[in-house]
Amino acid sequence: MSANRAFLLDSRPVGAPAGPHNFRLVERPVPEPKEGEIIVRHHWLSLDPYMRGRMNEAKSYAAPQNLGEVMIGGTVGEVVATRNPRFKTGDMVVGMGGWQLYSTARDSEARRIDPASGVPDEAWLGPAGMPGVTAWVGLETILQPKAGETLVVSAATGAVGTVVGQLAKMKGARVVGIAGGAEKCALAVNELGFDSCIDHRAPDFERLFAEATPQGVDCTFENVGGRPLELALSRCNPHARIAICGLVASGYDGTPTPLRNIGAMLAMRVKMQGFIVSDEHNLPHWPKALKELAGRVASGRIVWRKTVAEGLEAAPDAFFSMLKGGNVGKQLVRLI
Amino acid sequence: MSANRAFLLDSRPVGAPAGPHNFRLVERPVPEPKEGEIIVRHHWLSLDPYMRGRMNEAKSYAAPQNLGEVMIGGTVGEVVATRNPRFKTGDMVVGMGGWQLYSTARDSEARRIDPASGVPDEAWLGPAGMPGVTAWVGLETILQPKAGETLVVSAATGAVGTVVGQLAKMKGARVVGIAGGAEKCALAVNELGFDSCIDHRAPDFERLFAEATPQGVDCTFENVGGRPLELALSRCNPHARIAICGLVASGYDGTPTPLRNIGAMLAMRVKMQGFIVSDEHNLPHWPKALKELAGRVASGRIVWRKTVAEGLEAAPDAFFSMLKGGNVGKQLVRLI
Repeated sequence: MSANRAFLLDSRPVGAPAGPHNFRLVERPVPEPKEGEIIVRHHWLSLDPYMRGRMNEAKSYAAPQNLGEVMIGGTVGEVVATRNPRFKTGDMVVGMGGWQLYSTARDSEARRIDPASGVPDEAWLGPAGMPGVTAWVGLETILQPKAGETLVVSAATGAVGTVVGQLAKMKGARVVGIAGGAEKCALAVNELGFDSCIDHRAPDFERLFAEATPQGVDCTFENVGGRPLELALSRCNPHARIAICGLVASGYDGTPTPLRNIGAMLAMRVKMQGFIVSDEHNLPHWPKALKELAGRVASGRIVWRKTVAEGLEAAPDAFFSMLKGGNVGKQLVRLI
Repeated sequence: MSANRAFLLDSRPVGAPAGPHNFRLVERPVPEPKEGEIIVRHHWLSLDPYMRGRMNEAKSYAAPQNLGEVMIGGTVGEVVATRNPRFKTGDMVVGMGGWQLYSTARDSEARRIDPASGVPDEAWLGPAGMPGVTAWVGLETILQPKAGETLVVSAATGAVGTVVGQLAKMKGARVVGIAGGAEKCALAVNELGFDSCIDHRAPDFERLFAEATPQGVDCTFENVGGRPLELALSRCNPHARIAICGLVASGYDGTPTPLRNIGAMLAMRVKMQGFIVSDEHNLPHWPKALKELAGRVASGRIVWRKTVAEGLEAAPDAFFSMLKGGNVGKQLVRLI
């Protein structure tokens, strides 16, 4: 085996924007497995917006990542050494291996991939993984769209939005995506099957938004925050639901955009709820969600896209590019 | 019988603050009952913040009140003429008789008061009426406070807040009220039994709020909006709930105060929900809520206060005074 390489969180973004300078690449020996452990050689690393929150020291939904430790992250990889009878070398496993080439895991920290599932390895980090389950939980536990209702989803072609829109279509909802740029909007309509998709960079965004939601808005799956959320709230129908999944555009680096139209919360009896898919009370949903999602990814009923950065060294730039919307679909780093 | 007198909505508050000039007092003959009808001589008129919304033409949770029609309002009164076998003269009934001395009602529009209930007549417009049910529904269907949790309620000594705090105390919650002025705060603590009450006019309101919620905030029953809501959100614990019942201080006459700390919705997985007690899906709760509330009012377990304006002519001034917090407890107009 060659050496392990890993990105550590080296500093926090205090008083200046976050950037690749906050990470530090180190080289270390590949660990030997202790009793009960396996060693995994990662093939894919997942890059997700929640990681930005972990860089902060501020009160957030998870304990901050410690400085000097390997950045947290979902991984798919191959078992290359094992002292755990549940795994053999060559098994492919999903886990939280972090931003590095190798990781050590014990029983519950790795989940073996069924090689006969028909799901591509890297999809276990996307539509058949955490982002897919995020879409599923937000839809099933908060939004519960009914046939004929209008659902708006921001970051429509991102890892989560892609799945939100397709699951909502399966429930008979009218799906309106919001994305940055004509290319993403075309993808949402032509390949993902959304009813329409609005470019939030368009100068007449507000008018386009209104035209795309002639019956108002019943469900909003919010991945971004800011102006699209404001508009969605202003067009809410009675008893509308808003799931707050991410505020990537408005919160991670500074003060979130204030929500102006709070009066609509009362006038339209809106329910707005923030959620985190890894919250303890959501864990019971995972097995059912993963089973449904994997089946639909394997059968092609869920279409998905990926943006791939090549090699561990590319991870920091790819991460910050993703936070600015530079990706289409699931942002991954290929490590082999 | 003497003539009926009534306040009509004469104009809408467009481009200028609402005020008594928007109403017009008229004198009319007392109607004769048609088959199936009763005539009610009102003893008490209820004044409630929702009426302000009805004055607007804007999209709100209810159809706007038509111009030239008698202002809507809850009433308690005596049946003085009847052509309905379900009622006899002398019966006391609760209904939506409006801002006038007499009204006509049919079966379902009037509810007979049990004279043996031990509940004062006017309490059917307060803690044993719509404001009480509002408190009950917000608590039972949205907030669901658990023993030991901290609940914040604004307009703490108003008709709704009074009941919110006492019901929450019965559930074992720690109750922090917010009210305007030392007198109201003393009432909340000394007579209503709240754990503490903060004067939102105090120059060090923010510090006092933090001191009163050392364990953070789990439930917020919001009757006002603006700064107290912002503070409550900023001190939310994970999985906190916020029921939006009223935004009287921030919305009726203009643009609501924007909600700045929207990031906490996600970080703390907060659920914020607007509700209207008269919504169809809340109607099934009314009988159970009314029964519980009436029993507790009769037994003295729910303490309440009233502010009484004397005579129909006093209604407009009393109404706008109430919107500015001039009342303590339930705002009523005595019509006999």
